[in-house]
Amino acid sequence: MSDKFARRMGTVHRSFIREILKVTANPEIISFAGGLPNPELFPVAAMDQASHEVFAEIGASALQYSTTEGDAGLRSIIASRYAGRGLEIDPDSIMVTTGSQQILDICAKVFLDRGDKVVIERPGYLGAIQAFSFFEPEFVTVSLEDDGPNLEELEETFKDGAKCFYAVPNFQNPSGVSYSLEKRKGVAELLDKYDVLFVEDDPYGELRFSGEDLPSVYSFCKKPGILCGSFSKIAAPGFRIGWVVAEKRIYDKLVIAKQASDLHTSTVAQAIMRRYLETNDIEAHVDLIKERYGRQCEAMVEMIGKYFPSEVSITRPEGGMFLWAIMPEGFSSMDLFDLAIKDKVAFVPGRPFYVDDSGENTLRLNFSNSDEKKIEEGIKRLGASIDSFLK
Amino acid sequence: MSDKFARRMGTVHRSFIREILKVTANPEIISFAGGLPNPELFPVAAMDQASHEVFAEIGASALQYSTTEGDAGLRSIIASRYAGRGLEIDPDSIMVTTGSQQILDICAKVFLDRGDKVVIERPGYLGAIQAFSFFEPEFVTVSLEDDGPNLEELEETFKDGAKCFYAVPNFQNPSGVSYSLEKRKGVAELLDKYDVLFVEDDPYGELRFSGEDLPSVYSFCKKPGILCGSFSKIAAPGFRIGWVVAEKRIYDKLVIAKQASDLHTSTVAQAIMRRYLETNDIEAHVDLIKERYGRQCEAMVEMIGKYFPSEVSITRPEGGMFLWAIMPEGFSSMDLFDLAIKDKVAFVPGRPFYVDDSGENTLRLNFSNSDEKKIEEGIKRLGASIDSFLK
Repeated sequence: MSDKFARRMGTVHRSFIREILKVTANPEIISFAGGLPNPELFPVAAMDQASHEVFAEIGASALQYSTTEGDAGLRSIIASRYAGRGLEIDPDSIMVTTGSQQILDICAKVFLDRGDKVVIERPGYLGAIQAFSFFEPEFVTVSLEDDGPNLEELEETFKDGAKCFYAVPNFQNPSGVSYSLEKRKGVAELLDKYDVLFVEDDPYGELRFSGEDLPSVYSFCKKPGILCGSFSKIAAPGFRIGWVVAEKRIYDKLVIAKQASDLHTSTVAQAIMRRYLETNDIEAHVDLIKERYGRQCEAMVEMIGKYFPSEVSITRPEGGMFLWAIMPEGFSSMDLFDLAIKDKVAFVPGRPFYVDDSGENTLRLNFSNSDEKKIEEGIKRLGASIDSFLK
Repeated sequence: MSDKFARRMGTVHRSFIREILKVTANPEIISFAGGLPNPELFPVAAMDQASHEVFAEIGASALQYSTTEGDAGLRSIIASRYAGRGLEIDPDSIMVTTGSQQILDICAKVFLDRGDKVVIERPGYLGAIQAFSFFEPEFVTVSLEDDGPNLEELEETFKDGAKCFYAVPNFQNPSGVSYSLEKRKGVAELLDKYDVLFVEDDPYGELRFSGEDLPSVYSFCKKPGILCGSFSKIAAPGFRIGWVVAEKRIYDKLVIAKQASDLHTSTVAQAIMRRYLETNDIEAHVDLIKERYGRQCEAMVEMIGKYFPSEVSITRPEGGMFLWAIMPEGFSSMDLFDLAIKDKVAFVPGRPFYVDDSGENTLRLNFSNSDEKKIEEGIKRLGASIDSFLK
């Protein structure tokens, strides 16, 4: 049946990261490869209580089919939480999705014709590259600098007829980079000027452990685009609950695409999440996560300073889950990976985050899922691997 | 931004059925329109217990990201249940999906290029028409007779270069028709002869309340296609847990497509469903459902005999959730719908189940979600509407 596969299957691939995760299943390996939130911080007991209340009080209706748009109460809570951060969002413009990954798929369905130009950051989020690839766009990249995208480059891509720009302005995956206030305004201006659709992915925005919270690019746009959020990093990913915000004309199309994709997101999962949010202090819980990730990030930066050769530069994230390291040109992090695995430490080589086969010398390090002791030992091992590799 | 929508958005529409469900929200209306399982039969207490055990015993790992393929224990249970019905399926060829709707989306992603010929039954399942439409195939239809598709017509469509055939051989939605043993074998022979991919959707197969269980078409094929299943009708739809069975080369592609769609199905939902299946007698539960739906179907057939004019013919389902009624040619069930709503009874007009704008005179009646008393009253009302309509 091989000849029956659709043409697009020639251009999409299994996630390299997921393959790496299999290698790192060995418990002797200290892994900075995954993109997992720290499970020690999952509110297990509160979710147990919430689910019991859902079954006892809501009963059968929590197990029935429900609307594509999602649980109305949950959407109201999402809107109130935006309001708490100064962004007015109508609950009717929020649709609950099966993780924020699903938003990327349905946005691609709704907007992308084959060959359409999609601008992404360089490096860019792998899940988006995968989701969009199924609709065969032409990827165009913009350099990600320490404070956000290079605006001249971005304008060039917009002039060149880009249909949409996908980005993660807060603590980006993979780089950990966050856009400055100036860059946010600059991006919004260009989006409006060239009428380019912005897909603003914000799974990590609430996880800022240093510096000041900054408004979304969405909030600066005259023609609002699409804003994506998720409970995966602030509560738990196993529910697969994300959401998308869009103005009515776009929203209606997203609903049609979501309906064809999976009818609606798990009613049970939505009911439990809603009850959890109604009966617990999620903001206090997010503070706990930020405090922990902040400490772990700081430890990683400190240990890198101590154990990595000075030729390796890194980003200094103010939030999120990832840090990015750059070796001198000409060194391949894929080769380093084999060496590091022998030294029992793992990371993600940067190449998969580039659509143009560059980024050979970069690597992504996750700090959310290792405690400070593991970070010290793992960075020490990795430092030794890099030392011998760069010699 | 309207001009930015992808071309495919011109050919897909919001589900007409979902729109109808809004009209029928009025509690005075007896609705045979929905496609809902009877919520009185949802195992609420058992799910409460199962979820408590999951949180108490599995804890954080039930809330973490997990594999795209799905929970290994759940896949083993699905395989054992197939074995119990005489079908040997390797658990490694089963992938858990976000409802069986998602299988249709990912199959379309993996197989359909624009313009590919997809054969569907006439009438056909609306969710499949919607999911496939996003990939712009050419739909070709085959008449559904009382015992399955017209095999001569089917062979013609295969000769004409069909890429795949999508069908619901057990208690089809919308018609309630089930394939005879001969037709199953005949379909399998044609699939092998013309090397056409079969997507066999089987959400209702376990809900046979009369007649004899028949093997899947899948089991007769030399080159196995894709077999889809779901917990929505035998446990509860709110979990959004379905599954797909496929041989390795196809399976690997489905995994890539699923990963890009939503990473994986809710870990929490899978863990609760698995625990429920491990600690409860699902077969006894399915027997309960069959007994109830059988009684309700019988009541509906009986009441139709009593209250419908004799010009209306119906199918006599041996399982599932739907019954199909056909009025004389020239009468429109869309017009009847408006009349029936005034008489406070609802159904689904058959037109949306046809891709060729035929089926004007047909209607779908759901019997799973109304008790016998409601069925008597509702069919009486509908009979009166039809009576005055056909005059």
